[in-house]
Amino acid sequence: MRDVAIIGVGMNKWGELWQKSLRDVFVESALLAIEDAGVDHIDSMYVGCMTSGLFVGQEHLASLLSDYLGMGPIPAARVESACASGGLAVRMGFMDVASGMSDIVLVGGVEKMTDVGGDGATYALSTAADQEYEVYHGITFPGLYALMARNHMEKYGTTREQLAQVAVKNHENGSKNPLAQFPQKVTVEEVIKSIMVADPLTILDCSPITDGSACLILCPAEMARKLSKKPPIKIIGTGNATDTIALHGRSDFTTLNATVKAAERAYKMAGVKPEEIDLAEVHDCFTIAEIIISEDLGFFKKGDGGKAVGSGMTAIGGKKPINASGGLKSKGHPVGATGVAQVVEIVHQLRGEAGGRQVKDAKIGLTQNMGGSGGSAVVHIMQAM
Amino acid sequence: MRDVAIIGVGMNKWGELWQKSLRDVFVESALLAIEDAGVDHIDSMYVGCMTSGLFVGQEHLASLLSDYLGMGPIPAARVESACASGGLAVRMGFMDVASGMSDIVLVGGVEKMTDVGGDGATYALSTAADQEYEVYHGITFPGLYALMARNHMEKYGTTREQLAQVAVKNHENGSKNPLAQFPQKVTVEEVIKSIMVADPLTILDCSPITDGSACLILCPAEMARKLSKKPPIKIIGTGNATDTIALHGRSDFTTLNATVKAAERAYKMAGVKPEEIDLAEVHDCFTIAEIIISEDLGFFKKGDGGKAVGSGMTAIGGKKPINASGGLKSKGHPVGATGVAQVVEIVHQLRGEAGGRQVKDAKIGLTQNMGGSGGSAVVHIMQAM
Repeated sequence: MRDVAIIGVGMNKWGELWQKSLRDVFVESALLAIEDAGVDHIDSMYVGCMTSGLFVGQEHLASLLSDYLGMGPIPAARVESACASGGLAVRMGFMDVASGMSDIVLVGGVEKMTDVGGDGATYALSTAADQEYEVYHGITFPGLYALMARNHMEKYGTTREQLAQVAVKNHENGSKNPLAQFPQKVTVEEVIKSIMVADPLTILDCSPITDGSACLILCPAEMARKLSKKPPIKIIGTGNATDTIALHGRSDFTTLNATVKAAERAYKMAGVKPEEIDLAEVHDCFTIAEIIISEDLGFFKKGDGGKAVGSGMTAIGGKKPINASGGLKSKGHPVGATGVAQVVEIVHQLRGEAGGRQVKDAKIGLTQNMGGSGGSAVVHIMQAM
Repeated sequence: MRDVAIIGVGMNKWGELWQKSLRDVFVESALLAIEDAGVDHIDSMYVGCMTSGLFVGQEHLASLLSDYLGMGPIPAARVESACASGGLAVRMGFMDVASGMSDIVLVGGVEKMTDVGGDGATYALSTAADQEYEVYHGITFPGLYALMARNHMEKYGTTREQLAQVAVKNHENGSKNPLAQFPQKVTVEEVIKSIMVADPLTILDCSPITDGSACLILCPAEMARKLSKKPPIKIIGTGNATDTIALHGRSDFTTLNATVKAAERAYKMAGVKPEEIDLAEVHDCFTIAEIIISEDLGFFKKGDGGKAVGSGMTAIGGKKPINASGGLKSKGHPVGATGVAQVVEIVHQLRGEAGGRQVKDAKIGLTQNMGGSGGSAVVHIMQAM
């Protein structure tokens, strides 16, 4: 199995991009990544996208995008694992290079979510939950995560303020990210007093609906230095795991088993321990998610995630910076693009080019991307070469 | 890169399976494949599915199915390339084993198409074409393939009867396949006189709407003989390519460039020539497609595909048997499952267990699976070990 490195990254400005079609949104980031890598061709392509079928009536996405990018007739595949589609695309691209099938691989993620109305987006997103066992009974994702939050609060004493502090921290970080959809800073009071969605989660505990894309260029590690002038970033671990997608099938609502297993696999492959991770981008689709994930990745003892954010440990200057990019909360959450954008941020950080949100002396970074209420998870660990 | 073999196959009875949900349809074939392989676990899973989001309101499919199969927390990915999703899943499973990431991999394809009404299915399928450049203007797939048919007829003298003969042959073959949706034999006259869909294509020139699934178990070739009592079948070539998904972007309507390129790549990797292929399963979504594909795979000179079927060369007893299974026409076309089912048929044929439709002395088989009007194609070449 060949070692794999990232030699180019690209991400467009995220937001409500009504004036652009899905293909335009994707190609913006793809061209930035190709330019950043300095390559003159690509050998194959992976696109993470959750549900362009429901959002814009377009499947067959990888062919469409490879053509629009001017890269046909390259091999191209779209992969899907709900909101973990982007992370999964990174994993498939990794395998393609590792296996020796392709040398230069473009990995992209994209979602165009604002072309449907509010109800349409809620319906499209609900297809990440179990239609027959959950959705038909009326529950949507804020409701599912609210159940987790209540359970975590009762079991471990996590407070409403600690949930809000996740949003405060991530909007603070996002204010330093020129590509973030909502770079506005918020206060604990503003989060708590914002519109109630599903008790205890208010609208400022929830990640937004976003149009956006993100792309990477991968190649064999031994080819990386020759191809690129920028410091190549090696993918040293990849882990993917599944869980019941219906919440009622799980024995514990305060642990995300797919994340635990995916992380175990990635740590084992990388040969590193949680304490060696310098910074992480994790799937804060709701504030409670970041708290649970920070425990499940082994950064903090189970139940201590709330206290960790409260004490500033997960802030950019803290011991374990989480979501320096602004996370899903502030940067935005175009579902299929999120997992790729997390890797884009880690690459910027490990290259030392993250500007005002730079984490000092970052050597090893981790991404955790998750589908639905945690029914799937993809973890990657990266290191500067 | 490790060699990869198929050690188990499974396919359920295809048709209008209103009494079963998508997850049930999938698990039937998965359990058959696991039993056929004789394995006691799987390490990872790939699911080809075109648009469960539009057909049954369910994305996040690989997690759902790995859980329902009792296989969580294994890594699991859904892949999509419209009607080539199944072939793409085979390719991803191949890479996973070849790279050394996983040993025993389940590759499945599934589609549940009959839970939506006729208009719903036509809309869902239309998302494989270019929404902005084709579908908004009113054209659907029968229309696109009718354009190709007319062009082929004018350019090469292909006749209406030759188109019909593809259907006659495939229904004849399908009558010997107990799992086929439409095993009824048809005559040239019946095909021509059936309901007109898009001139010159009548309803019997078109593949049907189907519920169904198909599954394979892959493993490293060197492990295959130890794991399985049945003769392992080696995947010796894989090729994937893309083309413009909108027909108007192509310089020639009588050639499918993604198929030409994917075949080139698979032949090169396998080190075999078109004349060495003993039998093929190809993507006869419409009768004209089989004719064009049989030329693009290098079996016949461009323009001679119609004559070849007319002369019986592509029948089971002919020199180059095509779609011994009954093809999409008779066996059915649950879009995401089709590419996997093609491989299932080749495995049965190379093992010598295809019963009444057995091709004599079959040693090397090829599958060609295609998305939309040919915007993507996946070709695999297999050989008995």
